Formats: sequence, structure tokens, C-alpha cells
Amino acid sequence: MIRPLTRRSKQALKTALSTLAQHRNARRRPLPPRLWELEVDAAGHLTLEGHALAELTARWGSPLHVVHAAALRRNARAFLDDEGGPPCEVYYSYKTNPIPGVLRLLHAEGIGAEVISEYELWLALRLGVDPARIVFNGPVKSDASLREAIGRGIALLNANHREELTRIGAVAAELGRRPITGVRVCTSASWGGQFGAPIDGGEALAAIEEACRNPHLDMRALHVHFGAPLRTEEQLRQLLDETLDLAHVAAERFGFELDILDLGGSLAIPTVQALSSKDKRLNMTFLADLPPPDPGRTLEIRAYVRLVRRLVRAGCQRRGLPVPRIVLEPGRALTGNTQLLLTTVHTLKHASNAAPYAILDAGINLAQSVQSEFHQVYAATKMHASNYGSYRLAGPICSPGDVLYWGCTLPELAPGDTLAIMDAGAYFVPFATSFSFPQPAIVLVDDGAVRPLRRAERFEDLVLCDDP
Amino acid sequence: MIRPLTRRSKQALKTALSTLAQHRNARRRPLPPRLWELEVDAAGHLTLEGHALAELTARWGSPLHVVHAAALRRNARAFLDDEGGPPCEVYYSYKTNPIPGVLRLLHAEGIGAEVISEYELWLALRLGVDPARIVFNGPVKSDASLREAIGRGIALLNANHREELTRIGAVAAELGRRPITGVRVCTSASWGGQFGAPIDGGEALAAIEEACRNPHLDMRALHVHFGAPLRTEEQLRQLLDETLDLAHVAAERFGFELDILDLGGSLAIPTVQALSSKDKRLNMTFLADLPPPDPGRTLEIRAYVRLVRRLVRAGCQRRGLPVPRIVLEPGRALTGNTQLLLTTVHTLKHASNAAPYAILDAGINLAQSVQSEFHQVYAATKMHASNYGSYRLAGPICSPGDVLYWGCTLPELAPGDTLAIMDAGAYFVPFATSFSFPQPAIVLVDDGAVRPLRRAERFEDLVLCDDP
Repeated sequence: MIRPLTRRSKQALKTALSTLAQHRNARRRPLPPRLWELEVDAAGHLTLEGHALAELTARWGSPLHVVHAAALRRNARAFLDDEGGPPCEVYYSYKTNPIPGVLRLLHAEGIGAEVISEYELWLALRLGVDPARIVFNGPVKSDASLREAIGRGIALLNANHREELTRIGAVAAELGRRPITGVRVCTSASWGGQFGAPIDGGEALAAIEEACRNPHLDMRALHVHFGAPLRTEEQLRQLLDETLDLAHVAAERFGFELDILDLGGSLAIPTVQALSSKDKRLNMTFLADLPPPDPGRTLEIRAYVRLVRRLVRAGCQRRGLPVPRIVLEPGRALTGNTQLLLTTVHTLKHASNAAPYAILDAGINLAQSVQSEFHQVYAATKMHASNYGSYRLAGPICSPGDVLYWGCTLPELAPGDTLAIMDAGAYFVPFATSFSFPQPAIVLVDDGAVRPLRRAERFEDLVLCDDP
Repeated sequence: MIRPLTRRSKQALKTALSTLAQHRNARRRPLPPRLWELEVDAAGHLTLEGHALAELTARWGSPLHVVHAAALRRNARAFLDDEGGPPCEVYYSYKTNPIPGVLRLLHAEGIGAEVISEYELWLALRLGVDPARIVFNGPVKSDASLREAIGRGIALLNANHREELTRIGAVAAELGRRPITGVRVCTSASWGGQFGAPIDGGEALAAIEEACRNPHLDMRALHVHFGAPLRTEEQLRQLLDETLDLAHVAAERFGFELDILDLGGSLAIPTVQALSSKDKRLNMTFLADLPPPDPGRTLEIRAYVRLVRRLVRAGCQRRGLPVPRIVLEPGRALTGNTQLLLTTVHTLKHASNAAPYAILDAGINLAQSVQSEFHQVYAATKMHASNYGSYRLAGPICSPGDVLYWGCTLPELAPGDTLAIMDAGAYFVPFATSFSFPQPAIVLVDDGAVRPLRRAERFEDLVLCDDP
């Protein structure tokens, strides 16, 4: 008797607070579509290079990934900025968005391949990437892949941790080659965990020394990732200071010459940010809209690259070190904001005392990152709407975990409406599953034309390997 | 100056506490292998029906899923228990482990198909399942799949929510058929969210009434899932009480006749349990081993099924309702403990002041569930070991999130060792991704023989749909 009463009072309180949150939400403004070069036509439809997004799903199916070639080229060129000196060497982190059509376009712009597995190495070679434009990283490199990489003379082989040096040295000895090698290290603020030897405590220095003394390795590089999304000059400065201090000590102690400084990836996407646990809780409990980031607070690609080049030069000069070649391995910053995921409202589920569910044909099966990051969502045919509501956005896979956002203010929705989830070009595709629903097609919008990069999975594809 | 000092004191404290935790861990005993009909041979190797697990990876590759046919048959037969009356009708939840070879074996035992998508419906029909042995659920049923399901006369079509009744009715009208229909409802303790109409507040009753009044629907069933893992008689009792009360009210108000009571899935696996946030924190911070569940605290399948049949009979008699057919849709309870995932230690990464990482060839790409559940892990060739250590188990995908457990007491490991992750038969396969590494093979151990159910993905398979 008491429990139902408590439940009902709680429910009443929650309803009241949701109403308040919805009033607050009404004032919160979405990020403007022009950040992605999207336009809104007279009918209130979101368009990309003249193509109404909703019409793309009518033609190519729903859900649908849409890649924007111009944005890819713009980002690639910004990374290769060469104002006032030689540009960085840029290798795209394949794992971030391993779509051959996207990779090809980046390679055509002069971007190399950063691979972390035998499969990715195979893919880069299949796409015709020159081995001298491939960097090989990661903690799980098979012996076969090491043989391939060393045999072909790839640009750089980074040992993830000290124990890997022995394995790499053994394969190099077997092949009678001396691969250009780096050692991954961690600064006090960067990720550690399974990646890299920590500078603090001396493990990094010991690993560098071991690499230098291994006659089968041409040890020339330090490899470091900030790890968390890097947004500010201060974060970059600290990363470089600790890494160059390490290079300096290694030079003095045992004559290590830093020829290649590989700064990894980590640069953030200005329009995406990790959700704080507070924002997540407010979203889940009171349907409060998630706050969009201020795009101006993240270094733009060109500013970041110029800063890297300037700080490395200055930092080396200050320490009396020769200025090394600079390698970058961008992932999310290069492709994240060049792709969007279109999904259709399959059905609405109303409730008497809570916000309705909009149940979509895409959920965590295709957009897992959305559960831990803010991504802008638009109703692609209702950009001029005047009625708004708060919706819980659920996916199709019949799992209670398949909720993208617990509250999202959107124009009044109806079944068949198309939503656009922005910044789908980092970690959406590699984390995608075929959980009960085949994976969708991917199209490229390029200079006003639309062409397929990947067809949707067919039912038969999902049992391709069965009953062999 | 102060920050590094604080960091070091914190580190020292952490090291001391980890040592304590490791002492405690040494006393914690793993679950015994006989729970899975595994044996340990004289050399300390874990074997299944005479096959050393580590030799299976040598023959079929690593990682490797191993399905145990005898366990599948045992579970299927327990669900179909008919002592003292007609058995329940049992439909396997395809989404839980959609491997055609597993599904075929279950169908041969008399288990039907519970599907939640157009793809799963296609798969069931392709496997030769009689439409009268298919139940169709889920919030996202395409019109095409409804046409197929209704046209072929499937056993039961459950509407996920009220709004879906209109869509089902429209397709039924178009085909001139009257499908056997149910309505999904939620009790006070069961999942709600995007699934089902809540009993509390009257939404369920309204949905049932709407279904009864729709001339195109043969409304006969209530569908309810407990949702969270169901372990006890008390949980089942409450679920049935609220559902049968609802059926009783619906019978009195508008003459609804409950012909089919569909109790969904939810029965727990005795050897798996969700991790509490406290256990997770202790594991992450102090490497404290995760506590295994007491298998005796979860209803066994046969006990559960007998209880269901007894309680439904008694509950209906008490309310003056005819006893309905009982439908079950087990997922995890039917296949969870019939499969294990073998993975190889690729490399170790030692640290001066922390437990080493064992970096495996399988991580969250293949075993995502492990991050939120206890799963027993064995070192398959070291069951007689005397030296133990605490390891952090990381996967291969170069993401900081790819850690399965932060502390796991295991025999002293070396590269090449095989680990067995138990209870891999629920949600490992559907949540698997091809993130940088192709998905592994699946073999069946059946009556002493080993045969492949699914070959490993080839590199070419991963770009099968590209450049169409």
C-alpha cells in the first residue's frame, strides 16, 4: 500500500521537474547547421549540396550514413598546412572510420595510413598505399603482420610496450632487416593503461634504451598520444614538454637521436563532447537536454597543426635538440564531422505521465558513441517547426540499453520523420554491430553528386560464414 | 611539485591496498569447471568431451567460440519439461545468440523461434521453422515483415505498445487475415521504457481493450518480461500476480479471454551475475577479484518451468480464469552457459608498481558483456598451477575502453596461453564487432566430435559491401 503511494508521489515530483526542464530546454538552442555546411531550404528541409537529406533515405534506404567529400578534403588540407615551414606527416587512424571509399579519398589528398592490426595493414596495401606511407601501432601485432610490415619497409613501427621490442627484434633478425622503430610512451596526463611506457618512474627511458641497444632495430621515434580529447594549447604544451624532456634525457644518457616525433591523434571534434555524469543523470531523470559544446573552445585543425609545429621547433631549440620530423595520426578530428547518420522514426510510444519514446531504426547498434557523447540531432524535414517536444530516442534492438538519449527537444515527430545524427564519422562504423538488423549503406556527397561507397548488408551476408 | 608528490603518495597507497586485495584474492576460489561439464586432465589442461580446449585454438584458430551440443540439448529438454502436465511452448530468443548451427539444434529439440526483426523472421523461415512455431516481437517491425508474418500465419504477433496495434491492424486488413495477437505489458517490477504498456496507471488495460475492439486482430495473448535477470520464486510470483490480476480485470470489464500467456525470457544464468558498481570500483581501483555468484541461488531451468506451470494454474483457478497456454521465450538461460570463448594471451605488459596487463586477442570487440557481468575465466592449460598473480585483461582494439577485467587472479601467464571465458552463449555474438580484427570461428563439440558452425571472417569479408 505504501510502496505504490511512494511510487506515485515520486512520479508526480518527476513529472513536475520534467515540465520545468522542458521549459528550460525550450530556451536551449541547437548548434547551427552551417557548422556542417548544411542548409535549410524554403520547406524547412535540411540539405547538403542541394540534396534534401530525407530524400537520400528515400533513394538509398534508412538508416544511411552520408559522407561529405568536401569536408573530408577541407580537414585533410588543414592537417597538411605548410604555412611557414614543412607540414606534418599525417597518417589517418584507420580504426576510427575504416570505410575504403573514405580512406581512398584521404590518401588522394596525401594522407598516409595508421594501422593497428594485420587486417588494417592488409587494407592499406590493398588500397595501394605505399608502405613508406604506413605507420603500424597497437598492442596486438601478429608475427605475420610484423613480417609483412618489416619486409615491405613501412614508414614506422611503434612498439606499444617494452616486451614488444623483443618480438619486433626477432622478426627483424629473421628477415635481416632493420625497421625504423619507435617506442610509445605516456606522459602524466595522457592515457596509460595497456598503452605505452610511463615517463614517470623511468619505464619509458628504460624502454628507449633497450630499443637503442637492440641491433635489429633502427630506433628513431617517440610515440605519444594525449588520449583524452585534446582541446587546448595548454594540454598540448604539457604533452610536448614531458616528451621532449624525455628525449633530452635519453640523448644525454645514451645518445638517443629523436628523428621522428609521433604525436598520435586525440585532437577533439569541436561539436562533440563527452557527457559528464551529472549531465547524463539530468538527462535520464529529468529529460534535461544535453548541453552542446561551445565549438570555439576547441583548437581548430589548422591552429592545432601550426601550434604543434611551432611548439616542437621552440621546445627542441630550447633543449638543444635537432628538430625532428613530426608525425600526426588524427582519427576523430579528421573524419568525425564529415559524416552524418540518417535514421527514421519507426513509431512513437506515448505515455500518460512521461515524455514519448521516438523509436528509431538506428540505435546503439549503429551509434554507440552517442551514449557517452553529445551529438547534435536534427529533425531533417522540420527545421521550420514551431511545436517542440521532449523525446526519448530509442533504437530497434529490443534491449533496455538501446536508448540514445533520454531527453531530446525536437520538433513534434511523426512516424516516417528523418533524424540526422551529426558527427558520425568517428567510431560509429567500427563499433557497429549487425544485432538483429543488417548494417546500412554509406553514400558520398561529392561536388553535388551522390554515389554509394558501401551497399547495405543483405540478409544473406549475415550468414555468409555459416555452415562452412 | 605538489601534484607529483600527491600522485606518488596515492600510488603508494594504491600499491599497498592492491597487495592486500591480492592476498584476499588468493583465498577466493573460482567456480568449479564441472559446472560446465569441463574436466581437467593429468597435465592440468581443461578438456571438453576429451578435447583439450587449447588444442582447439591450435586447430581452428584463436579466438574461438566453442559450443557444447550436449549442454544445448540438456537446457532445451529442461525447458520442455512435461512432468505432471502439458509443457510450456518454448521459443528461443534469436537475438541472444543468432548462430544458425545453434538455432538448428534447438529447433530439432522442439524449440520454436522468437524473432524481433525482419532479418530474424527471414532467418527462421530459411532454417525451415514452421510459421506456426514463430513468435514476432519488438518495437520495430517493418510493414514488409508484418505482411510476411501475418500472411504466413505465425504463432503469435505481440504488439510492443498501443500505437503498434493500428499498424498491425492495417496490414491485417490489407491481407484479409486476422492474426493471433498479444499486447506487451509491464508490471511494477519489470522493465518498462520503450517496451510494453504499464499495468500501473491503466495503459495496459486500455491497450488490451483497443486490441480486443480491433476487428482485424484476434487478440488472445498477454506478453510480459521480467526484464532484469530473474532468479527467485518471489520475483516470478509477483510478475504472475500482477499479470493475472490484469487479465482478470480485462475479462470482467470487456470480456477479454486470456488464451496465451507469454512470459518472455529473463531467467538468469546461475554462473553469471551483473556487477555491482561497488564491485566494479574495487576491481578497477584495487584489482580485487570480482565475486562469483552462488549458482545455488538461481532457479534451475526445470525448477523454474515447473514453478511457472504450477503458479499459472493456481493463479488462474484462484481468479476463476481458464488456464491459458504458456509461452516462454528464453534467451540467456537457454544458451548462455552452453558456449565459451577461447582467447590467447598475445603479450604481457609489466609495470613496476602495478599488476601486469595480459593483452588478449579478444576484448570488448567479442566479449562486451564481460564489462558489466561476472564471467568465470580459466587459464586452460594451467589448471594445476601453483603460482598465481593478478592480471588486468585487455583486448586488442587500441581503445582505452578495451579492458575486460581490471584485476583477475590467474595462474602465472605467458604469451601463447589460452584463456577460456565462460558463458559466452548470450549476447557475445550479437554484440560482436569487426573492429580492426575479423570475427572468429565458431565450432560445435557434439558427441565427442568437433565440427565448424561458422568459419572465421576473412579480410575480404570486411569489405564485401564496399565500392558496390
